[in-house]
Amino acid sequence: MTTSFTHAVITGGAGFLGSHLCERLLASGTRVICLDDFSSGRRENVAHLLGEPGFRLVEHDVTEPWDPGRGAGRVDLVAHLASAASPVDYFSRPIATLRAGSQGTENALGLAGRHGARFLLASTSEVYGDPQEHPQPESYRGHVDPIGPRSVYDEAKRYAEAMTSAHRREYGLDTTIARIFNTYGPRMRPDDGRMVPAFLGQALAGKPLTVAGTGEQTRSLCYVDDTVGGLLALAGSGHPGPVNIGNPQERSVREFAEAINDLVGLGSPIGHVPAAVDDPCRRCPDITLAREQIGWEPEVELSDGLARTSAWFAARMPVADPA
Amino acid sequence: MTTSFTHAVITGGAGFLGSHLCERLLASGTRVICLDDFSSGRRENVAHLLGEPGFRLVEHDVTEPWDPGRGAGRVDLVAHLASAASPVDYFSRPIATLRAGSQGTENALGLAGRHGARFLLASTSEVYGDPQEHPQPESYRGHVDPIGPRSVYDEAKRYAEAMTSAHRREYGLDTTIARIFNTYGPRMRPDDGRMVPAFLGQALAGKPLTVAGTGEQTRSLCYVDDTVGGLLALAGSGHPGPVNIGNPQERSVREFAEAINDLVGLGSPIGHVPAAVDDPCRRCPDITLAREQIGWEPEVELSDGLARTSAWFAARMPVADPA
Repeated sequence: MTTSFTHAVITGGAGFLGSHLCERLLASGTRVICLDDFSSGRRENVAHLLGEPGFRLVEHDVTEPWDPGRGAGRVDLVAHLASAASPVDYFSRPIATLRAGSQGTENALGLAGRHGARFLLASTSEVYGDPQEHPQPESYRGHVDPIGPRSVYDEAKRYAEAMTSAHRREYGLDTTIARIFNTYGPRMRPDDGRMVPAFLGQALAGKPLTVAGTGEQTRSLCYVDDTVGGLLALAGSGHPGPVNIGNPQERSVREFAEAINDLVGLGSPIGHVPAAVDDPCRRCPDITLAREQIGWEPEVELSDGLARTSAWFAARMPVADPA
Repeated sequence: MTTSFTHAVITGGAGFLGSHLCERLLASGTRVICLDDFSSGRRENVAHLLGEPGFRLVEHDVTEPWDPGRGAGRVDLVAHLASAASPVDYFSRPIATLRAGSQGTENALGLAGRHGARFLLASTSEVYGDPQEHPQPESYRGHVDPIGPRSVYDEAKRYAEAMTSAHRREYGLDTTIARIFNTYGPRMRPDDGRMVPAFLGQALAGKPLTVAGTGEQTRSLCYVDDTVGGLLALAGSGHPGPVNIGNPQERSVREFAEAINDLVGLGSPIGHVPAAVDDPCRRCPDITLAREQIGWEPEVELSDGLARTSAWFAARMPVADPA
């Protein structure tokens, strides 16, 4: 699957996932406008792209409308990734997270509509909440508590899906929806509270790895290159979505801790902390639809992905004192 | 339970439910500002209140901020009812319905926050979608399709609940959430597509009553005076909600058709039409929480409520030609 986009706008393009998407689009010859307000994205994620002629970085909050203007030429892809996406981030900015899903999505849809562009919504496995069906197919309606702390993200994304679907039905927009499962890789923030950067930070510092709860809850992690490949395959297809983009290989949180500990090799002990509120016990994508409809599945082995991620983190972190 | 509010703002106050709420508050001595953009509400619903000194009608779209201003004095209750609420209405204005739930709710919360008022969100049994658990307690997380046609209403209300809860947690607002189940009574629009006005209109015209699908799907209908009593009990309590407000007496759609036919007495035949997309087969409130926490339960018998509703409709409809 090759993309044939000439001009893309990526909201949240300086975030973890967004910056990899910008990079891949640029590499395939697409001109890229990256919108970010740097509330959770970081300038350094796209600093290496600033010199490229096809790349433009615009500091902008997606809850306000934006358009590159007539002179910039027609945009043919709008990918709406802008949102806090880790619990640490959306717990600290709950109202802004809700707005990114509502006004943010509507503004991004408006941009796509004006340009006649393909629209890709970055939705999330969080729309399934704490699922009671495993693995989760796209038809699963979810198990989300609308008033719980996580609802500021989960319900914002469910709303964003409803708004996207309404624009498709009402205005004939060419929209699609990716339900992105847990992804890991270089450029995750060490302090974003997610499992892989947390464990890597601890293991590289020779400190105890803090497993939440019993550690028997599972995660299915997809390496970022695979996730971005899935987003591009979906964007390049005519599929309306939603399509699950994730790695169905399920492992316990404890297994991840042990794999990271073995990889880093500093022999950190494995400790435990209380489970987060509303933390789902188990989540795993059914990717039948992605395989059959957009010809995509993840390819990077966990050991390989963890090694690449660890190398990136190691180069940026203080080495543990062996004493 | 008596309310002790001195000054209330009711968004959607000229709607079916809103107009009854305005009326009851005025009767208990509360000054009332009724906001409505008349997209589904009607001026005639509140025309009889226009002469009352404590009543003020303001034509306003809740997706834009509004405040009565300092001179009007402090508001101590904001009840946010503004939204399309019947499938006919939200299918015809899907984007506006989504916005009423997002920007509309945030604006109403902002008003409550500035005045230090109690905030009541009119949520809905639709947050439970097509439920797989009966009856539905407030802890049931729902079975809503986020991309289906009904999601423009269901997800808007789920989002509104999340936004309301976030304002309570973040800013300490005194909020509550009513999950309102099907309500019937005078001032429903004959053309709003809902069951009771549809059957009454048909029965009073001596035409066949069109039952959707098999007619075995159930409905639990609450008379509007009871529903408004529940909203006032909840507003006057300190309970954060969500609290189900509805009548747990469950009957099949066919039974309602027969009861209305018997009441009107013109001997209309009962016919069938295809079921609506995503139409829930069964929905019934568990009102244990309302009974125990706010001391409320419905009191009006179905026969009584239907008779009052029928009388109201009969006075406004052409009499069927007995020939």
